[in-house]
Amino acid sequence: MSRGPAAGPQAPSAYRRGTVGDEAPPRGFDAAELRGRVDRCQRLMDTAGLDALLLTTEPEFRYFSGFLTQFWLSPTRPWFLVLPRTGSPTAIVPEIGAPLLRRTWVPTILTWPSPRPRDEGVSLLVEALSGLVPPSGRVGLPMGPETTVRMPMADLLTVQTALAPRELVDATAVVKSLRMVKSEAEIAKIRYICRTASGVFDAVPELVVGGQSLEDIFRAFKVDLLRAGADDVPYLVGASAPDGYESVIAPPDQRPLTAGDVLMLDTGATFDGYYCDFDRNFSVGPASAAAGLAYDTLFRATEVALERTEVGTTCSELYRTMRQVITDDGFASGNMGRMGHGLGMQLTEWPSHTVDDDTELRPGMVLTLEPSVTYGDGAGMVHEENVVVREHGLELLTGRAPERLPELRS
Amino acid sequence: MSRGPAAGPQAPSAYRRGTVGDEAPPRGFDAAELRGRVDRCQRLMDTAGLDALLLTTEPEFRYFSGFLTQFWLSPTRPWFLVLPRTGSPTAIVPEIGAPLLRRTWVPTILTWPSPRPRDEGVSLLVEALSGLVPPSGRVGLPMGPETTVRMPMADLLTVQTALAPRELVDATAVVKSLRMVKSEAEIAKIRYICRTASGVFDAVPELVVGGQSLEDIFRAFKVDLLRAGADDVPYLVGASAPDGYESVIAPPDQRPLTAGDVLMLDTGATFDGYYCDFDRNFSVGPASAAAGLAYDTLFRATEVALERTEVGTTCSELYRTMRQVITDDGFASGNMGRMGHGLGMQLTEWPSHTVDDDTELRPGMVLTLEPSVTYGDGAGMVHEENVVVREHGLELLTGRAPERLPELRS
Repeated sequence: MSRGPAAGPQAPSAYRRGTVGDEAPPRGFDAAELRGRVDRCQRLMDTAGLDALLLTTEPEFRYFSGFLTQFWLSPTRPWFLVLPRTGSPTAIVPEIGAPLLRRTWVPTILTWPSPRPRDEGVSLLVEALSGLVPPSGRVGLPMGPETTVRMPMADLLTVQTALAPRELVDATAVVKSLRMVKSEAEIAKIRYICRTASGVFDAVPELVVGGQSLEDIFRAFKVDLLRAGADDVPYLVGASAPDGYESVIAPPDQRPLTAGDVLMLDTGATFDGYYCDFDRNFSVGPASAAAGLAYDTLFRATEVALERTEVGTTCSELYRTMRQVITDDGFASGNMGRMGHGLGMQLTEWPSHTVDDDTELRPGMVLTLEPSVTYGDGAGMVHEENVVVREHGLELLTGRAPERLPELRS
Repeated sequence: MSRGPAAGPQAPSAYRRGTVGDEAPPRGFDAAELRGRVDRCQRLMDTAGLDALLLTTEPEFRYFSGFLTQFWLSPTRPWFLVLPRTGSPTAIVPEIGAPLLRRTWVPTILTWPSPRPRDEGVSLLVEALSGLVPPSGRVGLPMGPETTVRMPMADLLTVQTALAPRELVDATAVVKSLRMVKSEAEIAKIRYICRTASGVFDAVPELVVGGQSLEDIFRAFKVDLLRAGADDVPYLVGASAPDGYESVIAPPDQRPLTAGDVLMLDTGATFDGYYCDFDRNFSVGPASAAAGLAYDTLFRATEVALERTEVGTTCSELYRTMRQVITDDGFASGNMGRMGHGLGMQLTEWPSHTVDDDTELRPGMVLTLEPSVTYGDGAGMVHEENVVVREHGLELLTGRAPERLPELRS
C-alpha cells in the first residue's frame, strides 16, 4: 500500500492534514458522466434480465439525473425515475419539480399536479412502465438491504397489480454495484468536505474549553463548518462523559464539559450533496488512563486497517483486522455492529465492515474505517477516518486523527 | 376570528413580530404526554379494529417514544415501534440505538446486532407481532398518502408472509388524525423556531445587498439562524430572478443578486425536532411593477386566508379563498399544487390546502398558508405564513410578512 510519497503508518504527522480553504471543486456533473452511469447501469440490467428500473429515493434519482434539491425532505410527493434497458431515462415528477428538473440532462419529464392523493403519479408511472416492459418482462426495484421504497405502500401495490403479469423484482445489486464505486468528480466533492471538516476539527482545541455545554459546542461547530465551506451539516452527534461515552448517536445536552470527560463529535457535513462522515475525540483536561488506552488501541486498529485497505481485500477482512487489535488489547468491540461502511451521497452506504460482508474492495470505493471499543462501566469510544481505495493502496481523505488523545483546556 | 387583542387584517403592523432571543421552551416531552399519545392512539386502534400498529419512520417512532436522533439519516438499519391495542409499546432497534433509547419512557426494548442483512430485525419483529396479534387479527401499517415504509421491501414481504393469516392493513388515518393536532408543548417548539426565523428574516435587509451570490447569502442565513437559536437548518431553498422566480425548490447558485431581481428564501429550520416552514421575498432595488403587483396579491390572499382560518373551515375552503383573490387579480396560481399544508415534526405534513382536501380545521392544528402566482415569462412568487388553529380564531406563529415587498440595497 501507499499513501503518497512520504506517508506511512510510522509517520502519521506526514499525512495530508485537512485544510480549510482548499478550493472547492466544480458543482454538479457533466452530462457525459451522468450518461455514462446510465450506460453502465443498462449493461448490468441486461445481464440481470431487467427491462426497466424503477427508482424512488433521493440518491437513486440524483445519481442518474444529477438533480439536487432539499425538497425531498417533504414527504408529500413521490418522485420517480424510470430507466429502460435501452434509451434515455424518464422522470415522472410533481409539477413543482419541473422547472428545476428541466435544467438537467434528463430528456423526458412527465408531470402531474401534486398533491393529488387519489392518483399521486401512479397512472403516469403505470403507463410509462407498461410501454417499456413487455407483459412477460421484469421491472427492477431496489428492495434489499439499505434500501426503501419512497412512495406510499398502497400506491406501490396498485402499480404492481396494474403491471401484472410483469414482475417486480429486486434490483439492489445493480444500484449497489454502481454506486459503491465513485468517479473522480464524486471523490473530489467528498475529499473537499473531508478536508474542510478536518480543518474545523483541528481548531476545536482553540474553541472548546471545559464548562461549555454540548449544545453550545454543537452550535459553534456547525457555524464553523458552514463558514469553512460546508453547504450543510445534516449530521452532528456526539457525547461527553467521564472516561468515554456510551451512545454514539446522541443529540447534544446542556451538561457542561467536565475535567476527565472524553468529548466526541461525529459529523456528516456535505458539499454539493456528498458527505464526509468521521468523528474526533478530545480529553477535557488530562486523559484518564482508561481513555488514553482506549484511544491508543483505536488508533492502532485504524493504522492496521489503513495498511490493509487495498484492492481485493474484503470488508470482512478489514473488520477482523480491526477486531484483532481490539481484542488483543483486552477490549470489547462497541455496539455499532460494524467497523466502517461506504460513504458518498448518503451518510452511510454499502458495503459494511462486518464479520460476513465479503465485498471486495475496488478502486474508487470511498469507505470509513471506524473501530469502536467499550470498557469500564458503560464507557466507550469510536475513532473514524474516510478513505478512497486506489489502484495501488489508498488515499486518506480525512486529516488523520492525532496519535494521542488531544487535550482541551478544562 | 381573533389574532389577539389589537390585531386584525387592517393592522398588520400590530402583529407580534418574530423576536430573536425569545426564551427557548423545554426540550423533550414528559412521559405523561407521550403516554397520552399512546392512549389516544389505542382508542383509535380499537375503533379501527387494529390489534397492533407497526411504525417504521422517524416521526412515527419519535411521536410515541420521544426518541430524537439524527441517526435516521443512515439508511442501513431499520427501527421498529410496535404499539399493541392495550399496554405499552415495544421498540425493536439496532443495538447501537439502545443506550440512547433507554433514556426514554419506552418500557420494552428489543435489540439485534445490526447491520445483519440476513435478519435485519425481521425475526424479532415477527415474534413480537405474532405474540400480540391473534391469527385472525390485523396489524396496522401506514400505507397511504404522505407515508412510506422505512425498511427494505423484501423484509416487509418476509414479515407479511410470516404473519399470515394476520392481515397488514393501512393505518394512515390513525396516525394522521393524531399527529395533525399538536399539543401545547409541540406548539411551543414550533412557535420558538418560527419566531427565531422571523427575526433572522427581519435582519436580511441589513445583511444582504446586490452583488452577493445566492450561495453566500444561503451560507450567511444559515449561520444567522443557528446563532439565533435554531438547532439545525435542514431546509433552505430559494431563488433570485428578474421580476420573480420560476422554481421554488432550488439550491443556491453563484449568480450575483442584480437590481430588479426578486430574492426568495424559504426555510425549514428546527428546534428540538420541530420545523418552521416559511419564506420571505425581497426586491433588489426598487420592485418592478409586475413584482409589486404579485406581492400585493399574495399578501391579500394570505390576509383573507388568515381571516378564514378557524375551527370548522376546511382546507379546500382555504384553498378556494386564496385562489379567488389570485384569479380576481388576473394571476394564475403557481405550480405547487396546493396553498399550504400541515407542519410539525416534518417540513410538510397532512393536511393540504388543495381543491379537494376536505379536512376540517381543529384546535391545535399547525398549518402553513402559502399562496403562489405565476406571471410573465416564467416568473412567479410564493408567500407563506405559519399559524396554529385555536378554539377561537388562530395564533400567528411567524412574524407577518411586510405589506409591501421589502427592498434590498442594489
